[in-house]
Amino acid sequence: MSNVVNLSSGRNPSSSAFEELHRLVADDLEAVNRTIVARMQSPVALIPQLAGHLVASGGKRLRPMLTLASARLCGATGARQVLLAACVEFIHTATLLHDDVVDESDLRRGQASANAVWGNQASVLVGDFLFSRSFELMVEDGSLRVMEILSRASSIIAEGEVLQLTTANDTETDEAAYLEVIESKTARLFAAACQIGAVIAERPAPEEKALEQYGQNLGIAFQLIDDVLDYSAAQEKLGKTVGDDFREGKITLPVILAFRRGDAEERAFWRRTMEELEQDAGGADLARAQGLMTRHGALDDTVKRARHYGDRARDALAIFPESPMKSAMLRIVDFCIERAF
Amino acid sequence: MSNVVNLSSGRNPSSSAFEELHRLVADDLEAVNRTIVARMQSPVALIPQLAGHLVASGGKRLRPMLTLASARLCGATGARQVLLAACVEFIHTATLLHDDVVDESDLRRGQASANAVWGNQASVLVGDFLFSRSFELMVEDGSLRVMEILSRASSIIAEGEVLQLTTANDTETDEAAYLEVIESKTARLFAAACQIGAVIAERPAPEEKALEQYGQNLGIAFQLIDDVLDYSAAQEKLGKTVGDDFREGKITLPVILAFRRGDAEERAFWRRTMEELEQDAGGADLARAQGLMTRHGALDDTVKRARHYGDRARDALAIFPESPMKSAMLRIVDFCIERAF
Repeated sequence: MSNVVNLSSGRNPSSSAFEELHRLVADDLEAVNRTIVARMQSPVALIPQLAGHLVASGGKRLRPMLTLASARLCGATGARQVLLAACVEFIHTATLLHDDVVDESDLRRGQASANAVWGNQASVLVGDFLFSRSFELMVEDGSLRVMEILSRASSIIAEGEVLQLTTANDTETDEAAYLEVIESKTARLFAAACQIGAVIAERPAPEEKALEQYGQNLGIAFQLIDDVLDYSAAQEKLGKTVGDDFREGKITLPVILAFRRGDAEERAFWRRTMEELEQDAGGADLARAQGLMTRHGALDDTVKRARHYGDRARDALAIFPESPMKSAMLRIVDFCIERAF
Repeated sequence: MSNVVNLSSGRNPSSSAFEELHRLVADDLEAVNRTIVARMQSPVALIPQLAGHLVASGGKRLRPMLTLASARLCGATGARQVLLAACVEFIHTATLLHDDVVDESDLRRGQASANAVWGNQASVLVGDFLFSRSFELMVEDGSLRVMEILSRASSIIAEGEVLQLTTANDTETDEAAYLEVIESKTARLFAAACQIGAVIAERPAPEEKALEQYGQNLGIAFQLIDDVLDYSAAQEKLGKTVGDDFREGKITLPVILAFRRGDAEERAFWRRTMEELEQDAGGADLARAQGLMTRHGALDDTVKRARHYGDRARDALAIFPESPMKSAMLRIVDFCIERAF
């Protein structure tokens, strides 16, 4: 395995950043994993079966780690962040289940997706269960402020997903509209996951705001890089799946930049492949898409945009005094961006 | 229009019961409707469009009416029940949207279903939005007890739906398993809708419990009658759609009773039509199903079971002193059962 994407290897500077954060929250994260397994149980056997498939399928647990890190950064000493980090992961898992139904995906993290194994119906309903369970966990915690932040985040995520649906396969989508989608569907949960850390530690509004901004910008950077990775030749060499977004005609920033910088003939290519979804089965169209992106610097410039948001995420933490946790949270920004290479 | 199912006609005793309750909560219900319209808004235009289709499509608003009635029965004087009744209707609407996706229904209340018009993807996501929005409304109200009741109810509804999925098309499903499904997927929201009325009025636990029991039993009766109506010749004469459950192979109590009371040849018929979903296009199979149900008294006995739960619902209210609201709530039980005729 290459150390570029292997999170358990310490040789790559950005993956060692991930491990550093992982080490700092390790005990809490163990407790989160136990909570997740305990609280996804149900007398209806299909629920833990299906949820467990996704929960055990090698997600990085980045969002719950951010809740744990933010709470500790703010000096939280209790165990509330464990329950709430599990709650964040439940919301994330529920949206993944529904996303895969909406995208008709057969694969998730290189394995068969839940909808491919158990069908769309079960995925929709188990997603609903996890959503509801996440609210039960919040209620158990009892903080109205936390519930306000997370229920608002859930609404905004759904709005972002619907917005994405209405811009799907539309090559006229511009960068601003795309940003609006990813700010809602991806970055909002990162923001909420971090913000509640300050709430748990009962810190004043400026710290809440700072962590929200950190999470929001980190989330945008994270999604931009995700969108780059889907066209990355380096990923392809590592045996990772690329081209999922292309095959679905998903309009991401690399496409937007290449389309707008392209000539009439190139735009016709994008319209045929992304709007009409007329693509050759052999992969020549995907290769051409990658070629056009390279020619127009669309991937490099998407990474550049990601760096901009990464810089903003780092600066949002400026109000916190230096600490090993702060340093790990700063470096995790690099991890989210450098995984592009 | 016949007065049997026309809710605005006062000639039928049971529909006049509906009107009586409607009249007693009319002002609050107006406010609920305004709240629903105001709170389903979103900058993403597709959300109010799709949600509005369902919200405006002639639901009876029975569940929010139960919240309003329960709160008033318990002496609530403020306006909290309005927000929370809207919240109950949002949860109900979200489950309808997801149900139609799961059942692949093209019709809902005699109109094209949202998934038929806008596709499954939008229905899943707008359902998620309404779920999340309902939690936002609860958080706005601020009662942890209410949030506990409604978030637990949402989880149980999802569990019931998944359970229904695992028993679908299985003619061996017995009455107990069927009851478990409808207690969760239908009755739980009725129970929660009523129970929170007592919480809003800050009444002691026995009243909360009484209203929960009232709602739970009423909900079971309601679903049993719904299942009867789907095979009702009287409904057919009124131009209502019948046979949806049959075409989906949904195992409801009329089927369970007819199957278990039938001979080997009849059971083979049920297996072919409900398990294999091999049904003639002309409707002869549906007619035969109706005939077998009549022969074995399966519809009448399902109504009889519904009456049992109706009786229990009525008795649950015994601890409340006489009042016009109590009388209306007792009579609404008849409305839910008598609509079978």
